[in-house]
Amino acid sequence: MTHEIAVIPGDGIGQEVTPAAVDVLESLEIDFKFTEADAGDAVKEETGEALPQETYDLAASADATLFGAAGETAADVILPLRTAVDSFVNIRPAKAYPGIDAVRPETDLVFLRENTEGVYSGIEDRLTQDVSTLTRVVTESASERLAEFACDYVEDGDHDGFTIAHKANVMRETDGLFRDTVNSVADEKGVETDEVLMDAFATRVCLDPEQFDVVVCPNLAGDVLSDLAAGLVGGLGLLPSANVGPERGLFEPVHGTAPDIAGEGVANPAATIVSAAMLLEYLGYDEESDRVHAAVEDTLENGPRTPDLGGDASTEDVTDAIIERL
Amino acid sequence: MTHEIAVIPGDGIGQEVTPAAVDVLESLEIDFKFTEADAGDAVKEETGEALPQETYDLAASADATLFGAAGETAADVILPLRTAVDSFVNIRPAKAYPGIDAVRPETDLVFLRENTEGVYSGIEDRLTQDVSTLTRVVTESASERLAEFACDYVEDGDHDGFTIAHKANVMRETDGLFRDTVNSVADEKGVETDEVLMDAFATRVCLDPEQFDVVVCPNLAGDVLSDLAAGLVGGLGLLPSANVGPERGLFEPVHGTAPDIAGEGVANPAATIVSAAMLLEYLGYDEESDRVHAAVEDTLENGPRTPDLGGDASTEDVTDAIIERL
Ligand SMILES: CC(C)[C@H](C(=O)O)[C@@H](O)C(=O)O
Ligand SMILES: CC(C)[C@H](C(=O)O)[C@@H](O)C(=O)O
Repeated sequence: MTHEIAVIPGDGIGQEVTPAAVDVLESLEIDFKFTEADAGDAVKEETGEALPQETYDLAASADATLFGAAGETAADVILPLRTAVDSFVNIRPAKAYPGIDAVRPETDLVFLRENTEGVYSGIEDRLTQDVSTLTRVVTESASERLAEFACDYVEDGDHDGFTIAHKANVMRETDGLFRDTVNSVADEKGVETDEVLMDAFATRVCLDPEQFDVVVCPNLAGDVLSDLAAGLVGGLGLLPSANVGPERGLFEPVHGTAPDIAGEGVANPAATIVSAAMLLEYLGYDEESDRVHAAVEDTLENGPRTPDLGGDASTEDVTDAIIERL
Repeated sequence: MTHEIAVIPGDGIGQEVTPAAVDVLESLEIDFKFTEADAGDAVKEETGEALPQETYDLAASADATLFGAAGETAADVILPLRTAVDSFVNIRPAKAYPGIDAVRPETDLVFLRENTEGVYSGIEDRLTQDVSTLTRVVTESASERLAEFACDYVEDGDHDGFTIAHKANVMRETDGLFRDTVNSVADEKGVETDEVLMDAFATRVCLDPEQFDVVVCPNLAGDVLSDLAAGLVGGLGLLPSANVGPERGLFEPVHGTAPDIAGEGVANPAATIVSAAMLLEYLGYDEESDRVHAAVEDTLENGPRTPDLGGDASTEDVTDAIIERL
């Protein structure tokens, strides 16, 4: 069976790290068909559209999409792409790697971020010269779908349960619905949960990240709190993410286009390669996924390393080293 | 001229740290009239109301209010009290004190948080069994008022300018209005600004807090990002805050009721006493305010210290030491 993989490198170092991840996938004995498509600032410059219809359609029909990064147009690219693959959860692991400088090296968290609603609804109005509004949407159905995923996730991964991070003391109806729905699904499935206000989470995760493990949260909370965790493990540079839908997925590093080093061939491909490992797991290739994870960790620890980690290796050197260790 | 000060200790350690701050204020040669009032879980238990009308009225008419903490009912108490004093900005300094354990001891930030709108609008609906909504409100007028305050604040404090933290790439209309309004006020006043997405701020402040100084943000962003900064300086325990309106203000420590140690007389009064210092500054007693700040810093550094900081002094010991150093 051939797996159709859409490859959307985007802008900046996306053009360097995405092919590196494709090289890793190609080195495995799996029948992939890669189709590349454009998105981002460069294609907008040319065509007026940051996300051409054919790119959207490709992601909407491929089994999985590997995305690099987009510049100024990031929101115009990534938000519709998340919709294209019908992804209802964004999985964001934030783990400190051995040997990498981190504010909190003991951090080892996974965020399961609601990926379709909240303040990302896109419903905004300028009511008067003075007043603008945004309609934050929280539905029982999306909360349920996320909760079911979270329960399976903690069971598959042998986690003790999960923490719900929310702001239901202020957003009583909307985050209240989120919290209550997630809790009731977890109750039914016999999965343990606890909860924390998102502001208290921000304080507590700095003081002691080990008190948390899997964190389930609404869309914007997941955005901000996972980026906070990224800060604790030493930056966005090494973090992967998976946008998971029922039939397809979109896999992307959390980092951006890094315009300062783009084009030099020295971008760190680790986050994109680990995102490709998440893609493998999504398609059912658990063993191959584990091998890629292990090869990346080994390479991060023992080198070669790109300049962002104090080394002088190129993207290609690091990619080759990872492939050799597979 | 007598200054009317409303004193609302609230629950838990609020009952211990608020009187301590009153003792400090009373030790100064200033004509204060203190009037105490109830709010919080305990009064709700008794009367059914977390914020009795007379407490609200007192805060709405006093020159300044000193608030301790409230338990489960925190949102029911603090949000109306912020309205009672018509506070449009919440000033939240987050500074690491010498000699206190901190993840990032070099942190020295001040958040100027919009205090009236955003997702705190209170406009929520359950449209159907499935769908709930919240109307996030951002107005030009509130953004302007905040920006004018921020400009004065950076000029008075000799700051180089301020950073606007927002999420206008997703909340284009609402946070766009916020950002554009704040920028245009700053432009007019010749104050330098830069901007950062709130998620990027969360990463970057962990990696290098010194790149930021004064941070201006919408309500929820200010809530979460200032609590994050609190984590970087070692917890909420030492952080004060000021809710500032045109004619009155509400001053409160950022910490909660600490039920685990409440009633033992060992709560750290520092955050509430520094909040009282902010009250002094608000009323124009800059010199006295500086003296209180200095006495607290000296005491934090040289002791006596309460158990949360590894000492064995009582709230009273620490308060007395601060008063002696004034
Ligand atoms: C680019 C932006 C729209 C996006 C988001 O807010 O989700 C980004 O911050 C992310 O986390 O992937
Ligand atoms: C108690 C709660 C409503 C409040 C807020 O969200 O503003 C608190 O977190 C704070 O920061 O003072």
